[in-house]
Amino acid sequence: MADPSKCPPLTRPSVIAAHALIKPHIHQTPVLTNTTLSTLASTPQSTAALEGTPWAGQEPAKPVIRLWFKCENLQKVGAFKIRGAFHALTRLVEEEGWEKGGGRTRGVVTHSSGNHAQALSLAARTMGIPATIVMPRISTPSKIAATQSYGARVIFSGSTSVEREAVVADVIQDTGATLVPPYDHPDIILGQGTLGLEMQAQVAQLLASSEKEKKSLDAIITPCGGGGMLSGTALSCEGTGIWVFGAEPEFEGADDCKRGLEAGKRIERVSTLTIADGLRTPVGEIPWTIIHDRRLVRAMYSVTEEQIKNALKLVLERMKVVVEPSAVVGLATALYNEDFRWMVQNEAGEKGWDLGIVFSGGNVSVEALGKMFEPTS
Amino acid sequence: MADPSKCPPLTRPSVIAAHALIKPHIHQTPVLTNTTLSTLASTPQSTAALEGTPWAGQEPAKPVIRLWFKCENLQKVGAFKIRGAFHALTRLVEEEGWEKGGGRTRGVVTHSSGNHAQALSLAARTMGIPATIVMPRISTPSKIAATQSYGARVIFSGSTSVEREAVVADVIQDTGATLVPPYDHPDIILGQGTLGLEMQAQVAQLLASSEKEKKSLDAIITPCGGGGMLSGTALSCEGTGIWVFGAEPEFEGADDCKRGLEAGKRIERVSTLTIADGLRTPVGEIPWTIIHDRRLVRAMYSVTEEQIKNALKLVLERMKVVVEPSAVVGLATALYNEDFRWMVQNEAGEKGWDLGIVFSGGNVSVEALGKMFEPTS
Repeated sequence: MADPSKCPPLTRPSVIAAHALIKPHIHQTPVLTNTTLSTLASTPQSTAALEGTPWAGQEPAKPVIRLWFKCENLQKVGAFKIRGAFHALTRLVEEEGWEKGGGRTRGVVTHSSGNHAQALSLAARTMGIPATIVMPRISTPSKIAATQSYGARVIFSGSTSVEREAVVADVIQDTGATLVPPYDHPDIILGQGTLGLEMQAQVAQLLASSEKEKKSLDAIITPCGGGGMLSGTALSCEGTGIWVFGAEPEFEGADDCKRGLEAGKRIERVSTLTIADGLRTPVGEIPWTIIHDRRLVRAMYSVTEEQIKNALKLVLERMKVVVEPSAVVGLATALYNEDFRWMVQNEAGEKGWDLGIVFSGGNVSVEALGKMFEPTS
Repeated sequence: MADPSKCPPLTRPSVIAAHALIKPHIHQTPVLTNTTLSTLASTPQSTAALEGTPWAGQEPAKPVIRLWFKCENLQKVGAFKIRGAFHALTRLVEEEGWEKGGGRTRGVVTHSSGNHAQALSLAARTMGIPATIVMPRISTPSKIAATQSYGARVIFSGSTSVEREAVVADVIQDTGATLVPPYDHPDIILGQGTLGLEMQAQVAQLLASSEKEKKSLDAIITPCGGGGMLSGTALSCEGTGIWVFGAEPEFEGADDCKRGLEAGKRIERVSTLTIADGLRTPVGEIPWTIIHDRRLVRAMYSVTEEQIKNALKLVLERMKVVVEPSAVVGLATALYNEDFRWMVQNEAGEKGWDLGIVFSGGNVSVEALGKMFEPTS
């Protein structure tokens, strides 16, 4: 992949250029609304619900929140990751000397046990580039099968990042393949940011047809793992007046970006088994420059495992769409995090906010859901 | 409710009239397609998959099937039942002497532990009519709460139909309420049939915009419990050339309509605990006249519990929409029932069929899903 210093600048116009490149390859996923969930977000939590939380005994906030859901769970491969993968590869193919230098034979490589594996696999096949995916030997068979079904060669490694990177290094040495990282690269970040552009345009169109006074979103909240999607979305909103927030699980320190912002220093290592398994990685260096150094993300919020499960249950049972646990941390924040809810109340007052929620993906097996909601009695 | 003999005739024009009446109150639910599932339906089953089935050792069928999904899981109250409920109540309100005779004070009553309870509850509240729902004492708390949340008075009974009907009779004696049955009434059947009309128009429009030669659906398959939806859909297709099929679970004799057709006599009692809990009732008398006497349903098919679970897993994991087990018996038939698949192959040949599948509802709790797919290891 391109030397980051030769990539387009990390700006909104570059996200627009990325969108033009990948548009033929991706779905414009729908933006949905749901009356039940917007009503719930606009209803104060009960004081009982706040017991045992940091807000116990405090008056619950009464924000007015109209929710708009960008459904990347209905994206190709079931997740937004396909955007960055297609952008990285279309840019790679256009690179001077890449084709001539045998790039198409050498192929691409990455290590991932999640959505990036399937995304790179499908994008590479579509563009006629061989792909090798390094997956931990202990990955679930369904994820291995899904990655292979998109045409990639899967090879196995141990589970630690050191072991995985060693196998990737071997592949690069053997084949000359180009590494396509999951988030810490400008081309990936610009690709993921395209979902923010689409969402802005789709909500504006829906608001226009509803003849409401409002013309656009007030804010967007996205999940944050490696930070590619959050920082890309922040770039897509630069200069629009739309505020961008990030959400993380707090379990076992998964809220590294939030803690890093508080400490003024990026946290480089995280070891968590949060059920939001797409968000177990620390935020990457380049996303950090956008989130922290350039202050393009307004604030970070975190939610508990229980709050993630409650939000997931609501989406499955009330919206009737399937999302993975990582996808609902933004919704959980809007519903349950009193810091966020007071902030909305104070900023928006009675007029309230039109808040965009990114459902980042929908790749969860029924068995995993079964385990999460196993009857306890 | 109206004396059945005074209801509109059971014809396609009466379904069209019903649609005009209820349109302001219901969602026109989307019709979705899914490449993965259509490909799967058009791929022969492996011989291994046929082991232990009635088709073991036989050559698998190779039908060509393009699937169209009518998503009544995204309907108000999460199920098609709202159509019949609104139709029954709008017709009741228009009945001569109903208002004057104090009908609006006396209200309506039914017994149901399922989607009809919620549907009647919401329809009655919308139309300003008090509703009483008799539910078995052992109903799940979430279903009781859902029914109450739409504004109905819920009173409890034992679980057998004798006990439930006794309580309904008491309510009628006390209040003069009108009984709105779940399926065995012309107004209900005509209301449910409106989903067939919508589906015909929506698919025709989608086919027209795709510039394919085909202009409409070839067939529709719906689940069959009491038979209100199946017979209503059959009426909506009369004279259009679209064939209508019904699907049932075979577990513990739940395939009563299929067995009844084979015996030439309606089966009046069924006792089954199939996971497709909306399909545990025997087909009703009036639906039977449409399905059997008038031959408006071409054939019935049945599927196993395992096939229902497999189809459910595919819809949740690949389409990312939430449906209840009852909703996928039609899809399970198209994917796994070799009698159906051979029939399609023989009738449609290489041109294949555009087959409408009705996803009847999406009311399933994550706990119930958890139990269905609990890891066995």
